[in-house]
Amino acid sequence: MIILYHYVPVANGGKVLIALHEKGIAFESRWVDLHKFEQHEPDYLKINPEGQVPTLVDDGQAITQTSVINEYLEDAYPDAPKLRPDQPLEIARMRQWNKYIDDQVMQAVSIHGWQVNAGAIARAHSDEDFGRLVARIPLEQQRIKWRTAREGFPQEKLDEATRQVEEAVARVEEALANGPWLLGEFYSLCDINFFAYCGGALERMFPAIGNRETCPRVMDWVERMNARPGVARAMAIRAPEAA
Amino acid sequence: MIILYHYVPVANGGKVLIALHEKGIAFESRWVDLHKFEQHEPDYLKINPEGQVPTLVDDGQAITQTSVINEYLEDAYPDAPKLRPDQPLEIARMRQWNKYIDDQVMQAVSIHGWQVNAGAIARAHSDEDFGRLVARIPLEQQRIKWRTAREGFPQEKLDEATRQVEEAVARVEEALANGPWLLGEFYSLCDINFFAYCGGALERMFPAIGNRETCPRVMDWVERMNARPGVARAMAIRAPEAA
Repeated sequence: MIILYHYVPVANGGKVLIALHEKGIAFESRWVDLHKFEQHEPDYLKINPEGQVPTLVDDGQAITQTSVINEYLEDAYPDAPKLRPDQPLEIARMRQWNKYIDDQVMQAVSIHGWQVNAGAIARAHSDEDFGRLVARIPLEQQRIKWRTAREGFPQEKLDEATRQVEEAVARVEEALANGPWLLGEFYSLCDINFFAYCGGALERMFPAIGNRETCPRVMDWVERMNARPGVARAMAIRAPEAA
Repeated sequence: MIILYHYVPVANGGKVLIALHEKGIAFESRWVDLHKFEQHEPDYLKINPEGQVPTLVDDGQAITQTSVINEYLEDAYPDAPKLRPDQPLEIARMRQWNKYIDDQVMQAVSIHGWQVNAGAIARAHSDEDFGRLVARIPLEQQRIKWRTAREGFPQEKLDEATRQVEEAVARVEEALANGPWLLGEFYSLCDINFFAYCGGALERMFPAIGNRETCPRVMDWVERMNARPGVARAMAIRAPEAA
C-alpha cells in the first residue's frame, strides 16, 4: 500500500500527485500543513528526517526527493501507463530536463513563491515563535531560506530568478517546436516536472512572461496539460477540512 | 562510437571515467584543459553549450550531466557489468544517494577545491585576461564562482562546507555498517559518485575528517575502491602531453 505525505498540489507535492494520478496508482493521502510547520513535527521527522514534503511510503519503505519518487513509480509499477520513454537516449533527454528543472527552474520560481507565501507565513508568527519553529528545521539551507523569506529576498535576487524563469520558458518554447511535449511525441515526467514547478503557475506568477505573445507554444502546452484528466484530478486536491 | 570530453580523473570527470572503465566500455578520450579554459572555447560550446565537462558523445548524440551520463550507460549498455541494482527500491536508494552527493556533497567539496585550484588558475591571469575569460562563460553561477575563487571564499562559507563534508562522511560511515558498499552488498553508481567527489580526496583534502579514528569504515571503503581494477585504470589517466 502507498501512502503519500504531501501539501497542496503545486511544486513538489503537485509533481508526485500528478504522476500518481496519471499512472492511476491508488494511494492514501496524508496532509502535511506547511502553514502549521507540520513537516518539522517529531512524528513526521521519523518518516522523513529532512523534514520535507512529499514523502512516498510504499509497503513501509519511505522514498524522498520528487524526481527519485517519480522514477521509482516507473520502476515499481511497470504495468501502469508509462511516463518514461523506452529508448536510452530519450530517457537521458528526460533526465537532463529533470535535472535542469529540479536544480535551476525550481529554485528560481521558488524564490518568488517563498517571497510571497513563506514570507506571509513567517511574518504571521511572533519573533519568539518563529525562532522556535525555525530552530527545529533539520536542514541548514532551509533555515536560511525561512529567515530570508521573513525579511524579504533582496531585489537583485528576485530579478535574477525572474531572468532564469524567462530563460527556462524560452528553452521550453524552443523544444515545443518539435512536438506537443518536451520530448516531442512522448508525454513524460519532464512535462509534469516543468508544469508543477513553473508552467502551471506561469500566467498567475509571471504574467509578463506567461502570455501568448511571449511564448505561444508554452501557453498551448499549459492548456494541453490542464486538459489531461490525471492532471485535472491532481490539481483538484484540497485540504481535508476544505474537501 | 563513444567520445568522452573530460579533464583530470577526479570530480565530474572521474565519475564518468570510472563508470566507463568499470563497465569496460571502449571510448575515445578528448582532453579539455580547464587550466586553459578550453571548456569555454567556441568549438567545445558547439558540443556542450553550457561549457562544462564532461560531455559524452555516443553515436553523434551529446549527453551532459554526470549522473544522467552514468545512468545512460546503464540503459544503453545492458550487457556490460551492471552498476545499478535491479530492484525498484534499491534503485531509488541509489538515486537518493546520487541526489544528495550531486547537490550537497559535490558543492561542499567543490568550494574547497575551487578555493585552492581555481583560485590559483584565476590569479595566474591578469585582470584584463581574467575578465575576458570569465565574460565568455555561459552559466551565470559559474561566472560568479570563478570571480569568488579569484578573490577567495569567505571563511564562514569554507567552514560551512567543511561541516557538510563531515556530515556526509558520517552518513556514509553509518551506511557502511550494512555491507562493503553504500547500498550493502551491491557495488553501484553511488559508490563511484561519492568516491569521485569526496571519498577519493578525503585523506588529502580533509585530513582531520579522513582518518581511521573518525571514520574507519569509510577508510576501508576507500581502500576497496582503489583496489578495483576499473577504478585504478581510470585514476591513472593523465593529460596527453604527460602520458
